[in-house]
Amino acid sequence: MQLKFKVIPGSITTPLGFRAAGVFCDIKQLGTGKGSDKGRKRDLALLVSDVPATVAGLFTTNQVSAAPVKISAARAEQGIAQAVVANSGNANACTGAPGLKDAERMTLIAARRLNLAPEQVLACSTGRIGLRLPMDRVKQGIEAAAPLLSADAQSGHDLAEAIMTTDTRPKEVAVELQLGGKTARIAGVCKGAGMIQPGMSLTGARPAARPLHATMLCFITTDAAATQPALRAALTEAVAQSFNRITVDGDMSTNDSVILLANGQAGNAPLNVKAAGRADLARFQEALNHVALELAKMIVRDGEGASRFITVRLKGAQSFTDADTAARAVANSPLVRTSWYGGDPNWGRIMGALGYSSAKIVEAKVDIGYSEPGGRKILYALKAGRATTVKMAALKRLTELKEFDVHINLNLGTSQAVIYSADLTEEYVDFNKGE
Amino acid sequence: MQLKFKVIPGSITTPLGFRAAGVFCDIKQLGTGKGSDKGRKRDLALLVSDVPATVAGLFTTNQVSAAPVKISAARAEQGIAQAVVANSGNANACTGAPGLKDAERMTLIAARRLNLAPEQVLACSTGRIGLRLPMDRVKQGIEAAAPLLSADAQSGHDLAEAIMTTDTRPKEVAVELQLGGKTARIAGVCKGAGMIQPGMSLTGARPAARPLHATMLCFITTDAAATQPALRAALTEAVAQSFNRITVDGDMSTNDSVILLANGQAGNAPLNVKAAGRADLARFQEALNHVALELAKMIVRDGEGASRFITVRLKGAQSFTDADTAARAVANSPLVRTSWYGGDPNWGRIMGALGYSSAKIVEAKVDIGYSEPGGRKILYALKAGRATTVKMAALKRLTELKEFDVHINLNLGTSQAVIYSADLTEEYVDFNKGE
Repeated sequence: MQLKFKVIPGSITTPLGFRAAGVFCDIKQLGTGKGSDKGRKRDLALLVSDVPATVAGLFTTNQVSAAPVKISAARAEQGIAQAVVANSGNANACTGAPGLKDAERMTLIAARRLNLAPEQVLACSTGRIGLRLPMDRVKQGIEAAAPLLSADAQSGHDLAEAIMTTDTRPKEVAVELQLGGKTARIAGVCKGAGMIQPGMSLTGARPAARPLHATMLCFITTDAAATQPALRAALTEAVAQSFNRITVDGDMSTNDSVILLANGQAGNAPLNVKAAGRADLARFQEALNHVALELAKMIVRDGEGASRFITVRLKGAQSFTDADTAARAVANSPLVRTSWYGGDPNWGRIMGALGYSSAKIVEAKVDIGYSEPGGRKILYALKAGRATTVKMAALKRLTELKEFDVHINLNLGTSQAVIYSADLTEEYVDFNKGE
Repeated sequence: MQLKFKVIPGSITTPLGFRAAGVFCDIKQLGTGKGSDKGRKRDLALLVSDVPATVAGLFTTNQVSAAPVKISAARAEQGIAQAVVANSGNANACTGAPGLKDAERMTLIAARRLNLAPEQVLACSTGRIGLRLPMDRVKQGIEAAAPLLSADAQSGHDLAEAIMTTDTRPKEVAVELQLGGKTARIAGVCKGAGMIQPGMSLTGARPAARPLHATMLCFITTDAAATQPALRAALTEAVAQSFNRITVDGDMSTNDSVILLANGQAGNAPLNVKAAGRADLARFQEALNHVALELAKMIVRDGEGASRFITVRLKGAQSFTDADTAARAVANSPLVRTSWYGGDPNWGRIMGALGYSSAKIVEAKVDIGYSEPGGRKILYALKAGRATTVKMAALKRLTELKEFDVHINLNLGTSQAVIYSADLTEEYVDFNKGE
């Protein structure tokens, strides 16, 4: 298959008409309680479009959602936005009415500084739950960031750093595509690391296959023109096959947010869901899916303490809900995840997890195998519920890879699901045991 | 409240008319792949009643159940049994029809040696999944154990050792009570450690509040006389408030089994569910509940790598299912459990877990507090969704205890649930990463 888009170097500012900045304002030092001896880390980001952009946003379905999520979800619903202000080091979650005021003020300060209406500014926060935002530092940060806003790639990289929490590296992707004879670009940036199993939706209603749990933040910019319905539909599909299919620890965050801004600077005819626009929309979708999936995989590979990247490919389920539930039971089982860490092809633990999931399983029908990432040659440890004669050493050669696939066939139906997951290591425990 | 029973020293052989033995037959060395340099460990156990006993058994509701579970569940259903043969080091799970034959043969060998009908012998296995039982060793073990069967306490202790896998210590409780003027005894023994979140039932139907996941084995003997309906009802209630309320890692095993034998040697009028027998049955229930709960707590305290024992007390839910689901979401969250390990009162992670559970939660209503074990003085970190002014240091004094309670009030209804749980440590990961 020929790709209809091209991966290009760049950052969130690669699409025309976007500027970014990422600065230090010392929320991280406060919020995480880490001493200042760790050195300052960027923790305040601004992203601005030169012109009002069509916006779509998907947010956590956790019943406990952070103040910035509540505000941004309502504003994204309006369909037009021009800026995002974000901080790391403090989630502004479980902070009640005062927290909501803080989030609103954060957008107000940014709006004033950028000469925008506050309703056109979205906010995101990530970090420790339950602490009030240090608003003096937020204000300082916004004041410092605004004059640095720039369309050069480095400003995008600075933003990528400023939204990081326990991430060990920034996560960015950019692509270029043709839309009706015009060149358009899509670029994304995200952060993840822990509390990662997003289940996001446009409406607050949980996706059909309900995941359990990250804070992940993702901003995607494009200079394509798009109608709101087209943009919402495209982002929903892109998230469904990427961020909503990953798990690091099975813990869904209060702050997960994916925000897509389309500012039309590429000059294409606006993408729309009508028949006439289908071909362009399909091309845009394919490119957007790629951006979202690459970013989602980066989150898993950089998951807290993760030493291996495992793709669970489950098929033969009676329904998609069954496929999704069974794959997540495997990917979130502490016993399965520790065996992956050890490079141990312990398919018995996988069977145990399948069996206790609420998905329909018939022991005597289950196949379990391993392959290289995306590999077509599957080495089966179990066929129809019985151990094969494949040698442990041969299975181990696969499960000792940094990345491998687990193939499960329930042989009960035609539904399938893929989950991208990480192993459970001592480092994860050490990292999260507190200060 | 005056206890209607008395805790006494002893073992599974304390009730009249029971004999036990626990011997070495080297299944463990094989099954776990550990080298023989680790020293031999008892791995084959026999438990025999001098006379046919009324039996009740609750077994895992995992859809993938081990061969001995399938056999024992069917035989327990018949209502009369006289012996149990058990091995550790190999779960005889995911072994298909040959595994089922092995389990059957295990009971047949024991039955012959003990002069019983095979249908009166139940079997239990625990250990690695997916390996065939080494039947020659099983046979050797049974032959070695039979002549050692004895009613002295030490034989019960030997049995307690022989069913251990990753347990660091044997787990035994015995009590004495009066039933209609006669002295009766109840004694229990169990093993646990990892793959612990049982959800057992008499019928294979999952309990209303469906837990996710251990291998735990438990044998309870009593010299009380009881009808089958009374014994089944009593065991169901005892398990519902003990083993089905614990979690070590949220992984439900393929082998969980609780078997209760009542041989009537105390000479009481048989316990029954009719009006006339209610007082005795209630007294028996209270004592049985104590035995089951003490054993269940021992499993959590000796959970793989566990460094703290935490009781999650959740109330104010709209239904018992909501209460149970929310309490389990908290007790199984990797982020919550690692914060417990660190002695960190990170209630924000608890809120996150409540919010992603499928239980109904209203952020602005939730209270979260901490106390000493069973303590009535609760220190609230969160009231009506907002952080209180209680100092972190005061909360830490509680969460740094080896045992503490977490109190959650959803303030939405009158249902409650308790879950006994352990923290997530590096040792757990190290232990389970394979060989």
